[in-house]
Amino acid sequence: MQALKYDVLGIGNAIVDVIVRTDDGFLSDHGIAKGTMRLVDEEQAQMLYAQAGPAVEISGGSAANTIAGVASFGASAAFIGKVQADQLGEVFTHDIRSIGVAYETVPATTGPATARCLVLVTPDGERSMSTFLGASADLGPDDIDEEMIAASRITYLEGYLWDPPGAKQAFIKAARAARAAGRQVALSLSDPFCVDRHRAELLSFVRDEVDILFANEMEIKSLYEVDDFDEARKLARRDCRLAALTRSAAGCVIVRGEELHVIDAVPVERVVDATGAGDLFAAGFLVGLTRGLNLGDCGRLGAHAAAEVISHMGARPERPLTEILENSGLRQESPRRAGAHS
Amino acid sequence: MQALKYDVLGIGNAIVDVIVRTDDGFLSDHGIAKGTMRLVDEEQAQMLYAQAGPAVEISGGSAANTIAGVASFGASAAFIGKVQADQLGEVFTHDIRSIGVAYETVPATTGPATARCLVLVTPDGERSMSTFLGASADLGPDDIDEEMIAASRITYLEGYLWDPPGAKQAFIKAARAARAAGRQVALSLSDPFCVDRHRAELLSFVRDEVDILFANEMEIKSLYEVDDFDEARKLARRDCRLAALTRSAAGCVIVRGEELHVIDAVPVERVVDATGAGDLFAAGFLVGLTRGLNLGDCGRLGAHAAAEVISHMGARPERPLTEILENSGLRQESPRRAGAHS
Repeated sequence: MQALKYDVLGIGNAIVDVIVRTDDGFLSDHGIAKGTMRLVDEEQAQMLYAQAGPAVEISGGSAANTIAGVASFGASAAFIGKVQADQLGEVFTHDIRSIGVAYETVPATTGPATARCLVLVTPDGERSMSTFLGASADLGPDDIDEEMIAASRITYLEGYLWDPPGAKQAFIKAARAARAAGRQVALSLSDPFCVDRHRAELLSFVRDEVDILFANEMEIKSLYEVDDFDEARKLARRDCRLAALTRSAAGCVIVRGEELHVIDAVPVERVVDATGAGDLFAAGFLVGLTRGLNLGDCGRLGAHAAAEVISHMGARPERPLTEILENSGLRQESPRRAGAHS
Repeated sequence: MQALKYDVLGIGNAIVDVIVRTDDGFLSDHGIAKGTMRLVDEEQAQMLYAQAGPAVEISGGSAANTIAGVASFGASAAFIGKVQADQLGEVFTHDIRSIGVAYETVPATTGPATARCLVLVTPDGERSMSTFLGASADLGPDDIDEEMIAASRITYLEGYLWDPPGAKQAFIKAARAARAAGRQVALSLSDPFCVDRHRAELLSFVRDEVDILFANEMEIKSLYEVDDFDEARKLARRDCRLAALTRSAAGCVIVRGEELHVIDAVPVERVVDATGAGDLFAAGFLVGLTRGLNLGDCGRLGAHAAAEVISHMGARPERPLTEILENSGLRQESPRRAGAHS
């Protein structure tokens, strides 16, 4: 068996967020559903950007944010995702490498620019995203390094990758490589509309290939096409080995077989920007698993990480999450002795 | 006489800030003097960036920040400065236009990339800057639209422009055009090291061409090569028609002929990032002048704008400064009836 090198390897879209403070009127003027992500082409992206206010650029991408969180907790992390060889690609590459993440995906040199996500943040802290996938859609099976995956305790995939066909193939190849190496596969459902676009395939993937599922309330209800959270939770318990279901301010529910944990959210003074809440919850939860914490404490670590990231603009931690680990009082066993499932 | 179109036109380096939180050790390891700006070439910029932590990109540039502040106060504003036709150039252009600033300088299509400033922010909120001037150094006299200057109540110049030879010529051309049209010329000394590099020329420019001088304590002491602020203040009073001298937390001193105003700083809960404090002070002060406020109230408006910008990351206002104007209780005459000096 390949020696372990990474606690978590993430695969996802390599995106730079373009964050704009706006109001609800701007959303309705442009037909944007609050709190969700929609895909736009380059022309739409340019048009929307031209009409939006001044912005801040900061690296994003769902799985990439999670991996940044994992690294910020002091765990070893790697990332696979595609940028173009342009200035925003350099920004993305710098930011993820600078926190110690192994990131070696070869940038594209032809085709569209590095992916950008226009994140419209309303005064309530909610974010509404318009994503131009650009070069990140060029991720393909050739970008998947199976040795790297075999050397990773958990391979974490974002559901958004199901949108571009090549990325979906890369996604499936990665999951199979992880399972062939006896490693774990984690999946985030990413977005209710993304689930809606790919429901049948995602559901069968969840049942057959996924060890750890992350979903928020809207996503899990979309997956099962039910209106009731408890019903969705029961179905998730049936289909998933382990599911962590987040409910924003209402905390999260974790189910594994007969186990069920209900964890409170960590209160924050003010939600400045909700971007990255789910991504950072996953980071804390996965770090907890690799550290051998019990499921409740994994959820608590996730809740703390989410609270940090919604307290400021941007979807990546501003202060080292190791501080949270130190101050949490959560029992931490040796990472190597007590890996969650390996 | 050309009809008035803009309250303030700014001319300066067109820069995107790359903001990194760091510690004092990183500064000393790289021989960086805290609180100042140094010029670096592209190679040095890349090397430093590679060693720095994750960053946030946000439009900057000293005079550009001031102009963003002027526009945020609801005054009419224009900017002249050079970017490259690249992604960061688009970011700069978007950000300044999106707040209503007239910005029409033709981007460079050959030569170096858009200017970047690596802003290292230490836990005390102080910022230390390493600037790669890139395309902004290609600003030249041909970029100066004399009609635009004649249509601007005040032309505001940053001392940093004295560094690149072509920009300096543009600077001088702009000042002469403003004076020929009977308009006002304002200058910010920018940085003590910048003053040190160009002391004699800047001093003669201040005496002959400048109506309104902005300087902080270090800069005005550097200009006159004295150690004592009161001595520098007396010399500034002798040489300048109007000087606004800022002293960080100690507030500011404004001198014009026999008039002297000492204004307190506006207290802030925590200095998050001092970048832009001087730039936004100038914005508030200039808006006050164009609104016909008395000098003390001009200083107070500057102090409020500075307080806003040091309360968050980045050198441009996060909330509309019109709110400050509304809540300040400062007497505001009609802008058109009571222009300061026109």
